Amino acid sequence: MDEFELIERAFRARAPVTHPWTRVPNGDDASVHAGPDGMDIVVSTDTSVAGRHWPEDAPLDRAAARAVNAALSDLAAMGAEAAWCWLNVMVREAREADAMGEGAARALAAARVELAGGDMVRAPLNALTVTVAGLVPEGRAMRRSEARAGDDLWLAGECGLAAWALEAWQAGRRDVEARRFLDVRPLLAEGVRLREAGVRCCIDVSDGLLADAGHVARASGVGLEIRLEDVSGFAWLGERVEEARAARLALAGGEDYALLFAASPELRERLAGMGSRVGACVADHPGLVRATLRGRPVECDVAGFRHFG
Amino acid sequence: MDEFELIERAFRARAPVTHPWTRVPNGDDASVHAGPDGMDIVVSTDTSVAGRHWPEDAPLDRAAARAVNAALSDLAAMGAEAAWCWLNVMVREAREADAMGEGAARALAAARVELAGGDMVRAPLNALTVTVAGLVPEGRAMRRSEARAGDDLWLAGECGLAAWALEAWQAGRRDVEARRFLDVRPLLAEGVRLREAGVRCCIDVSDGLLADAGHVARASGVGLEIRLEDVSGFAWLGERVEEARAARLALAGGEDYALLFAASPELRERLAGMGSRVGACVADHPGLVRATLRGRPVECDVAGFRHFG
Repeated sequence: MDEFELIERAFRARAPVTHPWTRVPNGDDASVHAGPDGMDIVVSTDTSVAGRHWPEDAPLDRAAARAVNAALSDLAAMGAEAAWCWLNVMVREAREADAMGEGAARALAAARVELAGGDMVRAPLNALTVTVAGLVPEGRAMRRSEARAGDDLWLAGECGLAAWALEAWQAGRRDVEARRFLDVRPLLAEGVRLREAGVRCCIDVSDGLLADAGHVARASGVGLEIRLEDVSGFAWLGERVEEARAARLALAGGEDYALLFAASPELRERLAGMGSRVGACVADHPGLVRATLRGRPVECDVAGFRHFG
Repeated sequence: MDEFELIERAFRARAPVTHPWTRVPNGDDASVHAGPDGMDIVVSTDTSVAGRHWPEDAPLDRAAARAVNAALSDLAAMGAEAAWCWLNVMVREAREADAMGEGAARALAAARVELAGGDMVRAPLNALTVTVAGLVPEGRAMRRSEARAGDDLWLAGECGLAAWALEAWQAGRRDVEARRFLDVRPLLAEGVRLREAGVRCCIDVSDGLLADAGHVARASGVGLEIRLEDVSGFAWLGERVEEARAARLALAGGEDYALLFAASPELRERLAGMGSRVGACVADHPGLVRATLRGRPVECDVAGFRHFG
């Protein structure tokens, strides 16, 4: 049973209540609820744990900034403007709380987000739960369920570089390339621009390109086809590692926080410069994702980052 | 440095952004933000950790229900109707996630609250971050800063019983009285009634009566006087333990989730049956709390539950 099935069985299936002001319930990158003045409120929450979401020897300020930015990326995927954040901090020692506060504050300031609340508890490990909320015009939040057969599939940002950097870090490198997995930049402005351009379907690539494309395929009931040679990051990786490994990193490496989105071909001109076209949404193989490299199928047995294998 | 000072220095002092739609910022039981249709949205978040907020040998379903109910208690203190919950779960094993899901779902169903999102991560310890949101008419959220000299001080619910029960549990008892620290009932309906009756100042007693009264005294700039003999729970404790220990439990034992509120004497008639009058708000000793037992000062050196001593 993987993380998603366990959450479904242990939590969601047992929670039947839906509030009348909820527009998008549990299950997308974020939930969406009625807000004031013609706006909807978009909420997402993520937990990051030392040793699991960042290496124990990574600087804690950067790890905390990474956690905040990763949570903000879910708002980007919905096309929301980020507004508020709540931080729940588990720390081993007071000085570690100080480092985490410094990094979290840096990320919040960069995104102009208010720290609206949170708590802190001493624990035997360092961890951070980041809950974020943002605003989007009523009914306009981008959703993973809105891809249609015939749509183009687009990618804003790169895939595989965070996974490559993490492997480099674990191999002992400490240069700017190896630190890249900590330097998440949430594509907030990009998400807003996509939504304003008319994009209805978007997801952020946190679990890995194939895994997140799979979420879109299943939620939308379409098949997805991805041309690996058009995925940003793959060529860069191909210069550094053998092709099979570059393919695995680009397709299955998580935590890059690129935006994968689907849009009608009519939007091509308007979306020029907002990403790369990497494939198509098809009526064939609904719920499945197929990747090709120069026209030939790519096998990839790692379906992304899962907490329960 | 205690938890509050550390949060202030490491996080709040570094986060200057305030969103124009925020009505009550970081620092009360919850933050409050503009909502739709003349309502405000009230948000609070709490982390509970095994071995810290519940004993390692407590049943995990009840521990999870306790965590959800404790978070909902913050909405009760604001006078809000509970609407949504987000759960971030750290678990050691899948079957523990199942138990936590069962307990959390029970608490959410009892309060008719929607599970709007969350995540799950495998970790070396069990923990639960509960973020809750509720609704309150615009500008009507009860706040800890609204006590005025001359107000009566009231208590709805009992103090000291959770701490007593936890001590009994730790001494090996497993009966209904000893399990009481797990059986948090958030006083949501009571909070709404208080707000509707005109109460403007309320806090939930999570850190301990003296500590939480101290939050009110400092935020409101008044002195508080508490008559211990009028505190519900103290008499019950006095039948079981010596008086000094009963006083310590009632004044400093946390996690009872009673509601402490202040209200003008003009509201006495309307508030009859909604709590016990336990003291007064005074212009003397602003920011300080003084407790008496039958007219004599009570010394209590335990200022409540703090994570960083």
